[in-house]
Amino acid sequence: MPLRMSTLFLRTLREDPADAEVPSHKLLVRAGYVRRVAPGIYSWLPLGKIVMENVARVVRAEMDAIGGQEVLFPALLPREYYEATGRWTEYGDTLFRLKDRKGADYLLGPTHEEMFTDMVKGEYSSYKDYPVILYQVQTKYRDEARPRAGILRGREFIMKDSYSFDLDDDGLKRSYELHREAYIKMFDRLGIHYKICFAMSGAMGGSASEEFLAPTPTGEDTFVACHNCGYAANAEAVVIPAPPAVTAEHPAAQVLDTPDTPTIESLVSFVNERYGLGVTAADTLKNVVVKVRTPGSDEVETLIIGVPGDREVDFKRLEASLSPGVPEIFEAADFAKHPGLVRGYIGPQVLKELGIRYLVDPRVVAGSSWVTGANEQGRHAAHVVAGRDFEPDGTIEAAEVRAGDSCPRCAHPLSIDRGIEIGHIFQLGRKYADAAGLDALGPDGKPIRITMGSYGVGVSRAVAVLAEQLHDELGLVWPREVAPADVHIVGTGKDNQVEVALALAEELEGKGLRVLVDDRASVSPGVKFKDAELLGVPTILIIGRGLGQGVVELRDRATGVKEEIPLAEAADRVLAAAAPAPAQGA
Amino acid sequence: MPLRMSTLFLRTLREDPADAEVPSHKLLVRAGYVRRVAPGIYSWLPLGKIVMENVARVVRAEMDAIGGQEVLFPALLPREYYEATGRWTEYGDTLFRLKDRKGADYLLGPTHEEMFTDMVKGEYSSYKDYPVILYQVQTKYRDEARPRAGILRGREFIMKDSYSFDLDDDGLKRSYELHREAYIKMFDRLGIHYKICFAMSGAMGGSASEEFLAPTPTGEDTFVACHNCGYAANAEAVVIPAPPAVTAEHPAAQVLDTPDTPTIESLVSFVNERYGLGVTAADTLKNVVVKVRTPGSDEVETLIIGVPGDREVDFKRLEASLSPGVPEIFEAADFAKHPGLVRGYIGPQVLKELGIRYLVDPRVVAGSSWVTGANEQGRHAAHVVAGRDFEPDGTIEAAEVRAGDSCPRCAHPLSIDRGIEIGHIFQLGRKYADAAGLDALGPDGKPIRITMGSYGVGVSRAVAVLAEQLHDELGLVWPREVAPADVHIVGTGKDNQVEVALALAEELEGKGLRVLVDDRASVSPGVKFKDAELLGVPTILIIGRGLGQGVVELRDRATGVKEEIPLAEAADRVLAAAAPAPAQGA
Repeated sequence: MPLRMSTLFLRTLREDPADAEVPSHKLLVRAGYVRRVAPGIYSWLPLGKIVMENVARVVRAEMDAIGGQEVLFPALLPREYYEATGRWTEYGDTLFRLKDRKGADYLLGPTHEEMFTDMVKGEYSSYKDYPVILYQVQTKYRDEARPRAGILRGREFIMKDSYSFDLDDDGLKRSYELHREAYIKMFDRLGIHYKICFAMSGAMGGSASEEFLAPTPTGEDTFVACHNCGYAANAEAVVIPAPPAVTAEHPAAQVLDTPDTPTIESLVSFVNERYGLGVTAADTLKNVVVKVRTPGSDEVETLIIGVPGDREVDFKRLEASLSPGVPEIFEAADFAKHPGLVRGYIGPQVLKELGIRYLVDPRVVAGSSWVTGANEQGRHAAHVVAGRDFEPDGTIEAAEVRAGDSCPRCAHPLSIDRGIEIGHIFQLGRKYADAAGLDALGPDGKPIRITMGSYGVGVSRAVAVLAEQLHDELGLVWPREVAPADVHIVGTGKDNQVEVALALAEELEGKGLRVLVDDRASVSPGVKFKDAELLGVPTILIIGRGLGQGVVELRDRATGVKEEIPLAEAADRVLAAAAPAPAQGA
Repeated sequence: MPLRMSTLFLRTLREDPADAEVPSHKLLVRAGYVRRVAPGIYSWLPLGKIVMENVARVVRAEMDAIGGQEVLFPALLPREYYEATGRWTEYGDTLFRLKDRKGADYLLGPTHEEMFTDMVKGEYSSYKDYPVILYQVQTKYRDEARPRAGILRGREFIMKDSYSFDLDDDGLKRSYELHREAYIKMFDRLGIHYKICFAMSGAMGGSASEEFLAPTPTGEDTFVACHNCGYAANAEAVVIPAPPAVTAEHPAAQVLDTPDTPTIESLVSFVNERYGLGVTAADTLKNVVVKVRTPGSDEVETLIIGVPGDREVDFKRLEASLSPGVPEIFEAADFAKHPGLVRGYIGPQVLKELGIRYLVDPRVVAGSSWVTGANEQGRHAAHVVAGRDFEPDGTIEAAEVRAGDSCPRCAHPLSIDRGIEIGHIFQLGRKYADAAGLDALGPDGKPIRITMGSYGVGVSRAVAVLAEQLHDELGLVWPREVAPADVHIVGTGKDNQVEVALALAEELEGKGLRVLVDDRASVSPGVKFKDAELLGVPTILIIGRGLGQGVVELRDRATGVKEEIPLAEAADRVLAAAAPAPAQGA
């Protein structure tokens, strides 16, 4: 049956919602696809539900095509599974925790590694059972600190998560590659523009990992791309190539009076003018103090990060590098407790003595010489040499990455863009199998520890990403595969236009198309046109005043191309327009 | 693609799970459809997921057929909506409550009346918008005190809930009738045997209400049925017809010594022998003390229930009558606080004086005379007359209903059976519209308060109910519409049986059937046959030793009828067997 606007549970809005900042949020609310219930928690109205199911259908089809088998886990999970892997505490405030009537601890699943591992352990025992890929399309929960942008970053959201189980590393690589290819097909079918980026593992533990990022100006993730060699990576995953160690002799370290130099810029001018050092900001060493909290523990470590003075510490890169530890700002009260740290004049020369761990940017190689703090009010030190005057405890990827930085692979300048993560593929390895003791009995009777991959797609998020990437000033512009209908037939006029529209709607539904028909009485043509443009169905057919002359208007929502065609040809023309993609879902 | 047993994520079990008491639980676990994660919380394995989706598909189709529009609400809901209707507290311990990282109160939705009301209020304003029926198929949460029987009574479960919104009572009746007819079609298609029973409203508030109960010996609900007039009702909903008031004169009340009469039986024999009263147990008045707790309040009321001595108080009927109040056992410590209540010898004569509320069975009519407690140790009273010697504060439906009791409609003897609630339809009325202020602007510009219906189907529960009603000693026996496949092809033998089975599987899939094929190597024919019977696919086709002679065996799982047929006819025969029902879902 066609969807009829006269009875469809839908009210479009002319105004953007007050709390909406990004286009997808504004448009999905204005077009009546979603409604807010609480911060980061949304309801889906009928058209939104159809679009989301269309996304889920494509995701399932591509998972089935690589042999994935669909299961369904509960969202309400007992603590014990996540306790065993440490994630009950590691997840920190992001985990929704609750107690049942007996006082037992439960959580709302943010991701289901533990559960899948346990399920496979329960069913499979022999090496002959493997490999296996399992997936679910399920509601997930994360208590985000800053839920934002409507359904782009929600606290309750729908995700496809799958897990591969293999006997060896080659098997894992094959399963990973299968998923990578499936995701490419999936996102291509969905019409999402994306970039495959190297990714950090974050709290997941493991090794090889890539993210499918959808470039949008409003994206939360930053990624770098090299237009020369094709390298792309999430900013958190960019590895700064370490320059070779410096073997040149340096003068002895020297403490300098540097009054009134509150910024790196002022310091550089001052030491060049007063002492003729001839340095740039990149020759200074900035030392940033943070506190690092370990979830589930009361311990708080003081940590100092050394980066070249021409760069800021990128807090997201720092977070990713320290995960599961959580960095926090080192405040005045903390400085008060550490009199050895002279705020604004910290240098690494004293950190060993103070017992404070010191991690440096990879550019701070052995033998490199720096202008840095002298650990005295109003004084800096020059010719402070790594490995001679201080010894870092290791390196850390925390300095910001900037457009124009060298590609780590080919050294060409990198570009930097913003995007939204829509998929993540990840070679987990044996972390969860180790925690659960997931073994297969080998052909020789000896146990084989299973190796796993984990793969996610944001199903509800994909709806928002499509709205973000595909819209214009008039409204949404859905790709056909996910659109709530193939054609939006608009009947306007006082003669038999609505009757003809309804008859054509029935005819096209009979031919397998999904039809939305505007059969509303006492709604002006202008409002109907505006609604059609806002709702974003790919083909619009207007049955209006021309009907007397047997003429109707065919519009392509994406290109805006309008064409008058004979009514007699309308069905064939709409079918032809809808032909490239399969028709399902409404 | 056919489901292949060689790769299907499935391990059947030969033993019943230790915690399983009812057949559906045993069989769904043994056949690898579900797995337990926590009390009342289950995962769905691939075959279980398919069956549940098949149920959901039928439910959606029948909802769509009555014009229902599908939406989707979150399960994680802010307290405020449920605070407004009082259900935040009324739900008591059954509600899963939690706090987010900011300390705000949330709940996991047990049912969504408030949310749907709010959604309609947000979108609709004019009387022209109505009526509307909205539904969702969604995960629900109830912290049951006694989760049991696998997925029959879970704490996380999948439900279809729909709500109708009408301008007047006639509209509500129409919407209710539409749902009633849709449910009849739905359950008929699903192959569930059910009885439509009058139901109590419980905590929902409102008026007309019916339950679709699936009769099973292990059901938690008790229902009565009259085979004469067709009356059927949940035991909680049975209304005892009050006999006419008694106008005869009675002797004055008389206190009797009744030593050693701890039971009603011993009391009756004693007073008949000693005092020649000539009474039966039905002439005695038993007084049961309970505490009634109001959720969300610290108040606990002491309440006494008077029932004829030949009947027990049915705690579920009592609970339903007192809801949202929660009755609790009156314990020794409570008696200690009420010295006026002489345990074992309570009579209603003193309750007014003690300030204790007294509710009686409807049979305790004005002028009826009783043998009851004398409120003194070792003594009872005879000729205690209602309205003369005591005045009840009202009547209550709390006495047990028994087979053979009179039908409230036609007075024929009732039968009593056990069943499982699979659907509930309910004329809510204006309770939720009143709480939310849901009005439509009428044609005269005046507001019209909307009246609502609420309608539920247990989707995950229906899977268990089918397993409960349709099984034999060998395993599950699915009706075709929900079965995980139309045909289970078993290849056994050392020649080319498995190849032929696989080829036939592909052929039948190509013709639109859903096929499960047992292509496992090194699994004995006996194990394959046992698995096929356990899994319960309606048609089984065995390609075994007869293949050399061009013969295969066709089995009907439900009837057990076996037939040898030529291989050449196998495809047509299987298609014919599967013809009655549409093929979808796998």
